[in-house]
Amino acid sequence: MADARRAGAVVWLTGLPCAGKTTLCEAVAAQLVARGERPVLLDGDALRRGISADLGFSPADRATQAARVAFVARCVAQAGGVALVGLVSPYDADRKAARAAVARFLLVHVATPLSRCEARDVKGHYGRARAGEIAGFTGVSAPYEAPDDAEVTLRTEASPEQDAAAIVAALAQRGWLGPA
Amino acid sequence: MADARRAGAVVWLTGLPCAGKTTLCEAVAAQLVARGERPVLLDGDALRRGISADLGFSPADRATQAARVAFVARCVAQAGGVALVGLVSPYDADRKAARAAVARFLLVHVATPLSRCEARDVKGHYGRARAGEIAGFTGVSAPYEAPDDAEVTLRTEASPEQDAAAIVAALAQRGWLGPA
Repeated sequence: MADARRAGAVVWLTGLPCAGKTTLCEAVAAQLVARGERPVLLDGDALRRGISADLGFSPADRATQAARVAFVARCVAQAGGVALVGLVSPYDADRKAARAAVARFLLVHVATPLSRCEARDVKGHYGRARAGEIAGFTGVSAPYEAPDDAEVTLRTEASPEQDAAAIVAALAQRGWLGPA
Repeated sequence: MADARRAGAVVWLTGLPCAGKTTLCEAVAAQLVARGERPVLLDGDALRRGISADLGFSPADRATQAARVAFVARCVAQAGGVALVGLVSPYDADRKAARAAVARFLLVHVATPLSRCEARDVKGHYGRARAGEIAGFTGVSAPYEAPDDAEVTLRTEASPEQDAAAIVAALAQRGWLGPA
């Protein structure tokens, strides 16, 4: 029973497109690996390729996507790993349903202001959304419901490493990680 | 780094409906837990509820289902757990694609003869398939391609505990489990 200490947990990062969710997930993963944990990155793009190629970005499809992701994340936590979910997940109800499906759930609001997300626009999506070429784009033509129940809120003004350390500390504080 | 020993693996049980896949998964899970491992059961019904409510049983839908299941199983293995997949998965190509997606993959053919599966018929599906009420039912109105690449083949004539022990031994033999 060498591994009973391993609680398993789900870290769910919500925020606008280009808020820096995946960058943060990667920084958290690096810090968790250094602690001997087993992080599993579940970012929106990988998830769409892996389990949700059939889904678009309507509210109903986003709800289905969030439910499927919660299922995968719960399996990872059950295996003793730390699921790092980076998903716009703009609707409060979808996030609350994910929380209800998972035992140890840490909601992180990656609260980068819209102007900064749009200035980054890594994939040119904001530009295309402003031009009317992408419908239902969160922050431009679809709403983002900021969470009122986030355990951690980050404005991403610090370095990703500092923000990641805050997330890891929040996990450790709850007893969801093994000894460092 | 308390957990570097934990390899993570995927056990993929294929076989006809009512072959006894889920029963076997549960017996394997119990033995793995007793060894200090972290098994995660992924049986067809749970997976359909969790990630594939949209899919039916056409060959194309079965291929999509197998690919999604492989994605989830890989995440479990990455977290250091042992994914126990019980899925009819009647097509060789789908199983080989799953194998290609996963590093440590053990294919188990639950080779209960059709007559015995049909005699069990826990949910009455064979009866309905014979009556023409269910189309594309594996073993009756859709093919089952027996694997030529199974690491373990079981005719389920022994007890589930004995069969499960054979699967656990195959995992241990490959160095995919921690010390007992």
